Amino acid sequence: MTGLHIFDPIQDCEIRTTAKLVKDLNGSSKVHFIQIDRLDPPKKQAIQYLNVERYGKPGAQLPYIPRRTYAYYYLNDEMPLYKALINVSEKRVIANQATPEGTVGPLLPEDMGAVEEAIMKHPRVLAEIAKLKIDELSYHHSRLGKLGYSVVCEPWMYGTDSPNEKIPLIQAYMYMKLDHPEANHYSIPLRFSPVFEYLTHKFVRIDFLPAGADEKYIAETMAYQQLETVEYHPDLIQEPEQREGLKPLIVSQPEGASFEVDGSKIKWQGWEFRVSTNVREGVAIYDVHFKGRSLFYRFSLQEMTVPYADPRAPFHRKQAFDLGDCGFGNTANSLALGCHCLGVIKYQDLTRADQDGNPVLMPSTVCMHEQDYGLLYLHKNYRNGNTVTTRRREFVVQTIATVANYEYIMNYVFDQAGAITVQVRATGILSTMPNDESNVTDFSTIVGPGVTAPFHQHLLSFRFDTRLDGDDNTVVYDDYVPMEENTALNPYNVGYCQKRTFLENSGYIEQSPFTNRTYKVINENSINPVTLKPVGYKFEMPARQMILASKNSYNVKRARFATQQFWVTKYHDDQLYAAGEFTNQSQEDTGLSKWADGTESVRNTNTVVWPTLALTHAPVTEQFPVMTSDFLQFLVTPASFFTKNPALDVPLANNNFNKSVYYEDAQKSAGLASKGSSTAAPCCKSNI
Amino acid sequence: MTGLHIFDPIQDCEIRTTAKLVKDLNGSSKVHFIQIDRLDPPKKQAIQYLNVERYGKPGAQLPYIPRRTYAYYYLNDEMPLYKALINVSEKRVIANQATPEGTVGPLLPEDMGAVEEAIMKHPRVLAEIAKLKIDELSYHHSRLGKLGYSVVCEPWMYGTDSPNEKIPLIQAYMYMKLDHPEANHYSIPLRFSPVFEYLTHKFVRIDFLPAGADEKYIAETMAYQQLETVEYHPDLIQEPEQREGLKPLIVSQPEGASFEVDGSKIKWQGWEFRVSTNVREGVAIYDVHFKGRSLFYRFSLQEMTVPYADPRAPFHRKQAFDLGDCGFGNTANSLALGCHCLGVIKYQDLTRADQDGNPVLMPSTVCMHEQDYGLLYLHKNYRNGNTVTTRRREFVVQTIATVANYEYIMNYVFDQAGAITVQVRATGILSTMPNDESNVTDFSTIVGPGVTAPFHQHLLSFRFDTRLDGDDNTVVYDDYVPMEENTALNPYNVGYCQKRTFLENSGYIEQSPFTNRTYKVINENSINPVTLKPVGYKFEMPARQMILASKNSYNVKRARFATQQFWVTKYHDDQLYAAGEFTNQSQEDTGLSKWADGTESVRNTNTVVWPTLALTHAPVTEQFPVMTSDFLQFLVTPASFFTKNPALDVPLANNNFNKSVYYEDAQKSAGLASKGSSTAAPCCKSNI
Repeated sequence: MTGLHIFDPIQDCEIRTTAKLVKDLNGSSKVHFIQIDRLDPPKKQAIQYLNVERYGKPGAQLPYIPRRTYAYYYLNDEMPLYKALINVSEKRVIANQATPEGTVGPLLPEDMGAVEEAIMKHPRVLAEIAKLKIDELSYHHSRLGKLGYSVVCEPWMYGTDSPNEKIPLIQAYMYMKLDHPEANHYSIPLRFSPVFEYLTHKFVRIDFLPAGADEKYIAETMAYQQLETVEYHPDLIQEPEQREGLKPLIVSQPEGASFEVDGSKIKWQGWEFRVSTNVREGVAIYDVHFKGRSLFYRFSLQEMTVPYADPRAPFHRKQAFDLGDCGFGNTANSLALGCHCLGVIKYQDLTRADQDGNPVLMPSTVCMHEQDYGLLYLHKNYRNGNTVTTRRREFVVQTIATVANYEYIMNYVFDQAGAITVQVRATGILSTMPNDESNVTDFSTIVGPGVTAPFHQHLLSFRFDTRLDGDDNTVVYDDYVPMEENTALNPYNVGYCQKRTFLENSGYIEQSPFTNRTYKVINENSINPVTLKPVGYKFEMPARQMILASKNSYNVKRARFATQQFWVTKYHDDQLYAAGEFTNQSQEDTGLSKWADGTESVRNTNTVVWPTLALTHAPVTEQFPVMTSDFLQFLVTPASFFTKNPALDVPLANNNFNKSVYYEDAQKSAGLASKGSSTAAPCCKSNI
Repeated sequence: MTGLHIFDPIQDCEIRTTAKLVKDLNGSSKVHFIQIDRLDPPKKQAIQYLNVERYGKPGAQLPYIPRRTYAYYYLNDEMPLYKALINVSEKRVIANQATPEGTVGPLLPEDMGAVEEAIMKHPRVLAEIAKLKIDELSYHHSRLGKLGYSVVCEPWMYGTDSPNEKIPLIQAYMYMKLDHPEANHYSIPLRFSPVFEYLTHKFVRIDFLPAGADEKYIAETMAYQQLETVEYHPDLIQEPEQREGLKPLIVSQPEGASFEVDGSKIKWQGWEFRVSTNVREGVAIYDVHFKGRSLFYRFSLQEMTVPYADPRAPFHRKQAFDLGDCGFGNTANSLALGCHCLGVIKYQDLTRADQDGNPVLMPSTVCMHEQDYGLLYLHKNYRNGNTVTTRRREFVVQTIATVANYEYIMNYVFDQAGAITVQVRATGILSTMPNDESNVTDFSTIVGPGVTAPFHQHLLSFRFDTRLDGDDNTVVYDDYVPMEENTALNPYNVGYCQKRTFLENSGYIEQSPFTNRTYKVINENSINPVTLKPVGYKFEMPARQMILASKNSYNVKRARFATQQFWVTKYHDDQLYAAGEFTNQSQEDTGLSKWADGTESVRNTNTVVWPTLALTHAPVTEQFPVMTSDFLQFLVTPASFFTKNPALDVPLANNNFNKSVYYEDAQKSAGLASKGSSTAAPCCKSNI
C-alpha cells in the first residue's frame, strides 16, 4: 500500500484483508463483524515519522510503520465478542482473542436494520400492534386526503441496570405515524417496548411504559385514541406557510479558496493538520501546527453519554453512549452541497465495514470550508481616526451524526490567530414518551397531544493529546482571587491576582467559576521571552452542571468522565475512549476512572487532556417537532504561546477585497423599493 | 416636527432647540453643554401609542406625545452640574435644576480633546517631558529610516478614592511613541501621570506610577532608556510579512436583502423592532415582536465598568464606566463598507451635541445586515435517508465604541426562531503600564520590553424591559436537581427534576451553575396550551466570576450591579442605568442598589431584568499590540413561548438557492491546481 500517510483513513482493501484474515482464522465458524477500522500506530514510532516528514531533508526516507486494523466480531452469533488486531501492510494477524466475559460490542447499522425488521415481523409484537386497532382509524389531511396509520420500530441500545445481562440485547421504542414517508413518528410514542436479543433476534419480553404521574403502567396495549400529530415536513403540515421574504445569501470565492488540500493534509492561514475519518469518532484531527509551532498530536470527540431524567422503568436504562455504542462514523450523514455547507466546499469520504467485512462507502461525511464571522481585531486612534481593521476568516471542519432521533453537528472552527473553537450543535428530534392527557411532570415537557419529552443531559468527552512546542507538557489551572485587604500594596481593597496550581498526577480539575478558574496546558521547557513564563494554551470552558444521576447508579459507574469537566492523564497508546473501549451494556467505566486515578505523574510529560462538554437539557416546545440547534462549545486558544498577536500579518480589510454593497443599492439592483432613508426625517424649519 | 416616531433618535433641530432654550434660561452665563439627547416618553403613554400603531384601524390617529430632551451642562465652567428637561415639540422648558452637590457630569469628546491639548502645553508637564531627554534619542527603522519620538497624552476619567473630590478631574496616562502617525504609543507607557481640572484646565498635581514589584515609585521622571516597541501597523512593523493565501470571500444577495427598513423600523423573518441610536448606549432596540407576539418594550446595553486589578496608587482609581462616563454613542466608530461589515449593509447615523449645543453628525455608527451561520435544524430519517435541512440566517445590528485604547463591538444577533444572541467582542489595545525589566507580577502580564498589561474585568449591564405577551410578567429561575434516591419512582437513582422559584420582590438571583440554574421571564396570564404552563423566555448565561474588588471598596460601592449576574426590578420611567444616571467620579451606585432593594413586588407586573455579562481578563501576549476579539455573549431564547418550533416555515435548503460549489471546481475556475482527491489513494492490487 504505497502513498498512504500513517494517519490516512482505512482503505477498502485493508477492510477486505482484515475480513479475510479473520475469517481464515476461524475456519467454518460464521464470522459476524461488528466493526473494522484502522488503529493509529504506536505514538513513539509515529513521532519519528512526523519528525522526518517535517524536518527531514527533501527526499528523506519516511520510516516504515505497518498499518494496522482492529476487528470486533462474534462467531456463530453467540458470545463472547472477539477482537483481532491485524497488520494489513504485511497481511498477518497480530493478535486475536475473546474479550472479557459479558463484553458486548457496539451496534452495527446493518444489524440494527435487521433487528428492526425482525421485531416488526414477530408474532408477539404483531399481536400487540393488533391491539392498537389502527386499521379502524383514518385521518383526513386537508391536502393529502385520507391517510391511514403505520407502526414504526426504533431499536435502542439496551443500557444497563443489573449485572445479569450477559448477551447483547436491544430495546425497541415503538411509534405510530400517519402513513406517509415524511410523517413524524416521534409524535405518537406507543406504550409498549419489545426487548429482543441482538444476535439471534429471539424475543425476550415486552416492557410497558408509564405515561402518568408515577411509575405505574398498564401492562397491556389499548386501542389507540386518535390525537393530532405534530409534523415538521412541509408535505405534512396542514396549513403550510412558507415563510416569505428570505432572499438568497451567496458565499463565493471567485479567486478560489484559501486552503490547500493534499490527501488528508490541510493547510490554511498558518495552520497545518490532517483530517481523517473513522467509524467511532466520525473524524479526528492529527499533527496540528500553527505557524510552524507544534500544538496537538491528535484531537477528537471520542465519547458521549446522554442519560435521561425519567427514572421510571424502563426509561432508567435510557443512556446512550453515542460513540462507543454506535459510532459517529457509522451514523454520519452524507453532506450535500448547498444544504449542509455554504460556499466553496471540500468533502471527505468515510469507509466502514458491514457484517460480512465488505467495505461500505459513506460519501462526503466531512465537509470543509471557509466562512467569515465578523471582525477579528480593530483599533481606531481616536485622535486622527486612523483605523486598523481585520476580518475574522474561519476554517470549518464539519461532520454530522444522526443517532436515531438526534443529530449532532460537530464543528471544529480554526481562526487566523491560533485558536480552535470546538462547537457542537444538537438538533434533530427530541426523544419522546407517551403521555396521559394533561399529565404535567417535573422531569419532562409536554410537546404535543399525548406526547412528552423527558429531560436529559448531553455529556461529551473530547480528547486532546497535547504537543505544545514538544512532547513534554504540564497541566495547570489559574484562579483569580482578591488580594489581602488593607495592606501597603492594596490599601483601597481593589486588588486581585492569579494563583497557579500545577497538576502533579493524573486526575481531574474541579470547576471553580467564581475564581474564574482557567485550565491551561503549558510547556515548562519553553519559556516565552516576553512574559518570562512557560508558553501555553488555555481551554476556555464555561462552568456546567455535570451528570445528575447518583454516583451509586449504573449511569455514573459506566461514565465517570461525566462527573468532571477536565481530566488529565499521562499518554498511553491504548487509552483512547473516556468510558473505555466497550460501552454497550457496560457494567462500569473502563476508561478514565482507571487511568486518571492519581497514580501516574503528569508533570512535564506526555499529557492528554479530556474536556467534558455538558448540557442539561430541559426541552421546550420550540424544540418540537424538530429542534433548532442548541450550541455547546469551548475554546482552545493561545495563552502567551506567541510573543505577540500572531495575526498581525493578516491583510487589513478593504472593500476592493470584500465587495460589500449598500442596502439601498442592492435593493435597487434587485428591482425592489427601499423605503425611508438611513438618516432621520429632515428637520422641520424652525423659528430658532 | 412631523413624521417622527416616538422612538426615532434626536434630530438636529431638537438639539438646537434644546441648546437655545437652556441658553435663554441662563442669561449671560456661559453654558458649557456636556450631553444633550432624547428622553423616551413615559411608558404608559408610549404603550397607548404603540397599541394604536399596531392594532388601530388604518389611518387611525396616533396619540400625540411631545418629544423630550435632556441636557447636562455647567455654567461658567464651575460646579454644580445642571440638568434641564425640554419639551422640544412645544419648545418649552419642563424642568431645570442643579444636580446634587458633587455630581460630576460625563465626559464630552470635545472637552477631552481640549484637556489633552491643555495638558500637553502646560509648563509643569513640559518640564516633566523634558526630563525624558527624548530629543537626544532616535530610532533607526529598517524601512522608514531615522525616527524621533514624541509624547502622547491620554486623558482618563479620574475615578473615585475619597469623598473629597467635588469637581471634575482628569488623570492623564502618558506615553511615548515613534514619531509616526500609526505608531503604537501603548508600547511605551511613561511613569508620570498629570492630574488636571476638567473644566478649568488648571494643573492639580503629578502622580508617579509604580513599575516594580510593590507600591513604591520614583517621584521624578528619569531619562528614557530606549527599548524596542511592539507595533501593529504594517507601516511600522520592521519585517512586515503580509500573510499569504487569503482569498476573497464575497457575500452577495443578488435578489436583494431579506430585511425591510422604514425609518427606524426593521422587519426581518418574522421580527419587527425599531433601532434607535443614542449618545449614552450607542443603540437601543424598541418594541420587539416576533411573529406578531410581543417580546420586549426596549433593550440595550446601558452600563459597563472595567475595574483594574493593580491595587497600587494611582491605578486603584482605574475603573472606567464606559457608558455613564463616556457614552457608546459619543465614542462610536463610523463604520465603513467592507471593513466593519460584510455583504449587503444598511447604515444608521447618530447625532450628538458639542459643548455649544451644536449638532454633530456621526455617520454610519450602526450597521445592519444578514449573515449565514451554519445549520438551523436538520433531521434525517435513517431508514430512507430523507432529510429536512434549513440553514441559519441571522440578522445583525452592530455598533462599535472606541474608548481610548479599547474597542467594544456590540452585536445583537436575531435568528429565525425567535432568539436573540447578545454578543460583545472586546478588541482594540490593552491598557498598559510601565514595567521594570523582568518584573513579573501576579496581577499583570508582561507584553513587551518595559511594558506590562494589568489584569482587569469587564462587567457589562444590559437592561431588558420585558413585555412577553403583555405588560405583566414574572421572573422565575429553574434549578435541576437529583430526585430522592431509592424510591418507587426512582429505584435506580438516575432521576432528576426541575424546581422552579418565583421572584416575589425586586432583587437579584444568585448564580448556581451546578444546578443548571436558568433565568426565565414568564407571563403567568398566558398559558401555553401544549405545556399547560406559562409561556416564557430564558436568559442563558454561563456562570461567571463577578467583581473581585472588595465590597468595602469604592469600586463596588459605585457599581453594585457588578456583584450579581441577574437583577430584577419593577418598571419605573426613570430607572434606566444600572449604576445610576451619573457615574463619573460617583461616590456610590445610585442605580440598582437602590431600586432592587426588595421593597417592591415584581410578581406578575411590569418587570425589568438587568443581566450582567462578565469577563475576568488576564491579558496574554497574543492580545498585544492589538487584541483579537474576546467574545462575551448570552442568549435570550423562547422557553415554551410558542406551541412548536416557530421556524418550521423556513424554506428547506437547496443548492439552487444557495449556490455552493465544490472546492475542486472553484480552484479550477480560479486557475489553481488542486492536489490529491477527496477519496483516499486507490487500493493497491492484492492477491486476496
